[in-house]
Amino acid sequence: MSGVLEGLRRRLARISDLERAQSLAAWDERTQMPPGGAEARAEQLATLAELEHEHWVSDELQAALERARGEVEGLPADSDEASLVRVASRLAERARRVPTELAGELARASSLAEQAWVRAREESDFKAFLPFLERNLELRRRYVECFAPYEHPYDPLLEDFEPGLRTAQLEGVLASLRDGLVPLVQRYADGQGRKDALLHGRFPLERQRALAERLLAELPIPRDERRLDTTAHPFAISLSPRDLRITTRYDQGDLAVAVWSLLHETGHAMYENGIAPQLARSPLGQGASLGFHESQSRLIENWVGRSRPFMDYLLRLFREYFPTQFEHVQAERLYRAVNRVERSLIRVDADELTYNLHIVVRFELELALFQGELEARELPQAWAELMRTYLGVEVPDDASGVLQDVHWAAGLFGYFPTYSLGNVIAGQLWALVSGELDGLEEQLRSGELGPLRDWLRDRLHRHGAKFEPAELIERITGGPLDPGPLLTQLERKYEALAAGV
Amino acid sequence: MSGVLEGLRRRLARISDLERAQSLAAWDERTQMPPGGAEARAEQLATLAELEHEHWVSDELQAALERARGEVEGLPADSDEASLVRVASRLAERARRVPTELAGELARASSLAEQAWVRAREESDFKAFLPFLERNLELRRRYVECFAPYEHPYDPLLEDFEPGLRTAQLEGVLASLRDGLVPLVQRYADGQGRKDALLHGRFPLERQRALAERLLAELPIPRDERRLDTTAHPFAISLSPRDLRITTRYDQGDLAVAVWSLLHETGHAMYENGIAPQLARSPLGQGASLGFHESQSRLIENWVGRSRPFMDYLLRLFREYFPTQFEHVQAERLYRAVNRVERSLIRVDADELTYNLHIVVRFELELALFQGELEARELPQAWAELMRTYLGVEVPDDASGVLQDVHWAAGLFGYFPTYSLGNVIAGQLWALVSGELDGLEEQLRSGELGPLRDWLRDRLHRHGAKFEPAELIERITGGPLDPGPLLTQLERKYEALAAGV
Repeated sequence: MSGVLEGLRRRLARISDLERAQSLAAWDERTQMPPGGAEARAEQLATLAELEHEHWVSDELQAALERARGEVEGLPADSDEASLVRVASRLAERARRVPTELAGELARASSLAEQAWVRAREESDFKAFLPFLERNLELRRRYVECFAPYEHPYDPLLEDFEPGLRTAQLEGVLASLRDGLVPLVQRYADGQGRKDALLHGRFPLERQRALAERLLAELPIPRDERRLDTTAHPFAISLSPRDLRITTRYDQGDLAVAVWSLLHETGHAMYENGIAPQLARSPLGQGASLGFHESQSRLIENWVGRSRPFMDYLLRLFREYFPTQFEHVQAERLYRAVNRVERSLIRVDADELTYNLHIVVRFELELALFQGELEARELPQAWAELMRTYLGVEVPDDASGVLQDVHWAAGLFGYFPTYSLGNVIAGQLWALVSGELDGLEEQLRSGELGPLRDWLRDRLHRHGAKFEPAELIERITGGPLDPGPLLTQLERKYEALAAGV
Repeated sequence: MSGVLEGLRRRLARISDLERAQSLAAWDERTQMPPGGAEARAEQLATLAELEHEHWVSDELQAALERARGEVEGLPADSDEASLVRVASRLAERARRVPTELAGELARASSLAEQAWVRAREESDFKAFLPFLERNLELRRRYVECFAPYEHPYDPLLEDFEPGLRTAQLEGVLASLRDGLVPLVQRYADGQGRKDALLHGRFPLERQRALAERLLAELPIPRDERRLDTTAHPFAISLSPRDLRITTRYDQGDLAVAVWSLLHETGHAMYENGIAPQLARSPLGQGASLGFHESQSRLIENWVGRSRPFMDYLLRLFREYFPTQFEHVQAERLYRAVNRVERSLIRVDADELTYNLHIVVRFELELALFQGELEARELPQAWAELMRTYLGVEVPDDASGVLQDVHWAAGLFGYFPTYSLGNVIAGQLWALVSGELDGLEEQLRSGELGPLRDWLRDRLHRHGAKFEPAELIERITGGPLDPGPLLTQLERKYEALAAGV
């Protein structure tokens, strides 16, 4: 690499280190920090965010990018070098729109709001959380204005998570999903009375923790490169491609929570683990977008984790840790239990068919908030109404309603739709890998995900953030973003399930 | 506070946030991080150290300090404002002597060396650690040269930990200690055969962890403001005065390791917890020096934790967690067991009489290293010789010799003597508080350390780093640093113990 590019790389590596320092502080805040540390942590996060922002907007970086653009002219667009300069230029350009003071304030406010959200959710008290949410919204609206003029006020939010995607296109994708899923939910949703007791009962936390550690140990991430912790709202964070922080939560009455949260977060971690080492410490050393990230978590959680062959493996594991409950259970019964369709209140516990309807609810509320059609204080009521419309459920309290997710506390608006994009992309990838990977079914049956990991690494993981989402999906599948494969496969799966009754 | 001072404060708060981000990264590295994260962590720490250094040496900070010096002229020297400007000016002046690249390299090399040390100690393999140690030494020598001319090459190292103290004065204090202690060791040291089995046996780790959490819960730090983790080499780090990270280690065959490490580290944490809130996020928001810090840990570990009345409390606790072992034990026997004097190999497990001789060994080796009289590769042999001379023991392997401490791996030269300074200051403070605090003995008997904490907070903790060590000891005791009270009290204690046989 030339001196010019080496100089740019060094500057970008510093920025990356500052980002990872923020990730560590956020992980610690959510899994380790005593509550007394909340205020100081907010200040520390704000300082790190400000410093990162100052680096992005500095004249020195501008000059280094300018020189580097000359240097990579003529290189293939998909070379590491050209990609680095292109992606870094885009990020620097965006950062220069935002005042450093606002960047710090966004970090400070969301750190405080997250702490307030934890308490408010425990007490199901939206009012206690409202001032923090209003502050987050006010700051986020100021942020949006930094990018005027825009087609839609939601576009600048989306751009941070899905480079290149516009609100208009997203509305189309979500509408197709909704229209495809609503009839499936009507056809296959169980009534309230038919709950399978299999995964509900008494599962002591210590045994669940041991099971989770064992399951993680058998998934294809080296033991020395990850750890597992407990948190209120599971997430995965990468402090480097070889230092992955996976979290899950445990519910004594529901074994599914811990197991499928763990599978989900491990999908995220596998993605980061597979990014090409030479992209580390640069803006290319991360996932291509949140949608692509979520495609990996949903692929492991759903297409692997709720597949018929994987039940053979899981059942063996469950029998080992909870022999009384699973001794005489058949894999087929487990398969039905984890694929039960139910109109429910909580997004993270939702099945594959209703899940995207939870997203549609949040997406419509966010649009209304940023189009100026809805005030934060009106959210609980608006939430309840949309849940009634799309899912046919009554929201009994804020904890199982508007307070269930951390995202708005963390200042993350424009984030929820990426979950549905992830489902769509996972559907496209699963259609592809099912046809290409020999022996996949047998591997799932024995819980051996190495070959699948290798396939994903080769097609997707290693590229990091080199390509924009639209280009990446085209490179991998030969076509555009398409909800078709997801809907087709879901229809086939649930038809077969129903036929087997 | 004026606009000028407010501007300075903001700059210093940023630096403080960067320091705490490094503390978090170091704490995480030692207690949580998977090994795969080592290299990336070293880079992250180096970047944060470089950024901190750049802030200290920036022209903007210089200008802000300049203006602030005018502002505080005429204010009392012990006001918060004048102290802030004085201390920050001294630190900035020191930082300007050191190139930023060297500051980053020191952080990077020591992070890598710490990881190498963990592996080398496990395998008792000094040779595997040697290249890392040599690199640390080479960088530290370059650091010393930044401060030329100096009276003694050890002075610049000392100055980072004990502002104002010179090597010549330190040599005098350590010589007095050595000369006072050697005859006491000769008089009171037990032979190898008389080990009390009381604290040695089989203490399951889970029970020890529960005991440690319980003991910590009864010590005077609010539960919401600290946490306890396990590590190879116990330490305490403050991420804010209300976010204290205490660590200890557990040895299944030796209950004393966990309990007295915990008491020691809690002493450190109580100090940070007591710093006046208005000093937070500034260079005044930390302990006055490492010696003063260590005075607090040793005071809790030894003067509280090995006192006769505290045995009544500890025994009640031990009986609860290990009834079989402690059911029929008298407090007097526990008192004798924890005050047994023995010529031993490991510093952190050493008794009060031999402890400072372990320090003298390390101090003499460090002097020789920095005076150019000793090479790193000669350390194991030189270590063994000095241990023979001062303690009369034979070192069987590197793990129980030169590899036992993390300090040189962490690049901390000039640090060890502060342990002895801490013992000296703790002796002075204990003589004072014993005379002043009504009911102290009764409080120790019931494990109620609140009043002692309040006394220490009032005399010492709240001042943070406002005063240099020499001035602080004068303010508290009315006299200079003095090994006299330590030696007198130790002599009295061990005489009484011997008389009681």
